[in-house]
Amino acid sequence: MVGFIGLGIMGRPMARNLLRAGFPLVVFSRSRGPVEDLVKEGALSSDSPKGVAERSEVIITMLPDSPEVKEVILGKEGVIQGAKPESVVIDMSSINPLVTQEIAKTLEGKGVKMLDAPVSGGEAGAIQGTLAIMVGGEEEVFRDCMEIFKTMGKNIVRVGGIGAGGFAKLVNQMIVAINIAAIGESFSLGVKAGLDPQIIYEAIRGGLAGSQVLEAKAPMIFRRNFKAGFKIKLHQKDLYNALSTAKDLGVPIPLSSFVQQAFISLMTEGRGEEDHSALATFFEKMAKVEIKSI
Amino acid sequence: MVGFIGLGIMGRPMARNLLRAGFPLVVFSRSRGPVEDLVKEGALSSDSPKGVAERSEVIITMLPDSPEVKEVILGKEGVIQGAKPESVVIDMSSINPLVTQEIAKTLEGKGVKMLDAPVSGGEAGAIQGTLAIMVGGEEEVFRDCMEIFKTMGKNIVRVGGIGAGGFAKLVNQMIVAINIAAIGESFSLGVKAGLDPQIIYEAIRGGLAGSQVLEAKAPMIFRRNFKAGFKIKLHQKDLYNALSTAKDLGVPIPLSSFVQQAFISLMTEGRGEEDHSALATFFEKMAKVEIKSI
Repeated sequence: MVGFIGLGIMGRPMARNLLRAGFPLVVFSRSRGPVEDLVKEGALSSDSPKGVAERSEVIITMLPDSPEVKEVILGKEGVIQGAKPESVVIDMSSINPLVTQEIAKTLEGKGVKMLDAPVSGGEAGAIQGTLAIMVGGEEEVFRDCMEIFKTMGKNIVRVGGIGAGGFAKLVNQMIVAINIAAIGESFSLGVKAGLDPQIIYEAIRGGLAGSQVLEAKAPMIFRRNFKAGFKIKLHQKDLYNALSTAKDLGVPIPLSSFVQQAFISLMTEGRGEEDHSALATFFEKMAKVEIKSI
Repeated sequence: MVGFIGLGIMGRPMARNLLRAGFPLVVFSRSRGPVEDLVKEGALSSDSPKGVAERSEVIITMLPDSPEVKEVILGKEGVIQGAKPESVVIDMSSINPLVTQEIAKTLEGKGVKMLDAPVSGGEAGAIQGTLAIMVGGEEEVFRDCMEIFKTMGKNIVRVGGIGAGGFAKLVNQMIVAINIAAIGESFSLGVKAGLDPQIIYEAIRGGLAGSQVLEAKAPMIFRRNFKAGFKIKLHQKDLYNALSTAKDLGVPIPLSSFVQQAFISLMTEGRGEEDHSALATFFEKMAKVEIKSI
């Protein structure tokens, strides 16, 4: 039996893909709606993470951030209270990987193994089962869980020991955020100098300035379309986790820090639900310009 | 007749390609060697920019930075002293585009037209005639010079009025510099957390963090190979020109500013001749870590 805890925008379609692939499933989530939907489709439900763990060999968590994961796994009614020795906890949330490592150590004391396996690819990737999955943990445990991962993702890579999945995800999120900021800052200059951003884009996209961020996000910026996509408030969370781990590991990350503050500024304006490409507007506002195609 | 002034690493192969395409050429450069080489291949030479201008309908300049371009075009023995009305000056250097606009205005007073046409693609692109050329200036003048551009480049785009070529180039250089910094900063965190940078790279390159900079520069960083390529001192110059125009236009560019300072720091260590990918080592040093593949 596979347990699945956290049936939000990402968790629900991931759990559904497991079920459809034939894995017997027991689920828990705070909101009743998604639980009832999955039960209709053949899942069992439980009234606590502990209850899920009692019945499962593998327990997957997909939750908002570090505090929720800690509570669900180590709390009073948590996974650790019910988990059998030799069972495996797979946390697929995007959290502080130093917290992941702490949790894994506590679970180890009970003979429970852990993988961290954050994903990228968003809601669409979760629905289609095409997520990229970055996994940290023991090689053997990773191999044992491969069939489970395959129901949810396509590019599944073990990147190191426990916590490594989370660190690879942080590197990814830092690069994406800074690359968006680079577009916002540089195009603010180009547009204020009188150029059409679409024409700059066509001139530079084929060269060394080319990137997935430029291809995916610049057109959204030019058309003033900031419908998420990936929300500012979630990217802010990821950068905050980067700042927190960076402090603990002794790694100054000045650019990520600047961008995290810019995200905070946008959230203060009530724009946390917008796509992270709206980060460009932080630079526009400072320059009193709009990166809008003519 | 086409005039060509400035036969450095870029200018020499560009002039050679013009000559090979059958354009009669008159050249001027401060160093004798390159002039003699081109004369052997069929070019004429002149002893001043003024002399070049007297004999040419189109005068191309390829020089280090704004002061040199200003001196060569507007100085005592400069192009403007010899240029015929209706002749065209094409500055292909990468300089401050606000200086370009000043120079164009002065030339206009003498009935001389101007295009700015900075390039990207480096020495290899100059030799192979595959440079990307970003052109600013009047549409008609641009069209008249197309056959000339085609001998030197492949992706030739008019991006706007005079100076627009330089601004598009600045946008390009800002994005490239910040994207390299993003790799340096984020991989410093990942590596200090114990991950192999090569494995992070494999895990993230296919997603939204993917970029030309990641593909071209990350492997150089992992292998500690900082042979230019594009030199730190030249990228610093471009960012300094960005800072200068940004100040005049009222556009704060905090990330580019940070990276420009990081380049200065590397130049102070005597590393100005290294490839700009060595920017990553600025972040490594702060974090006491090396982004080196295991």
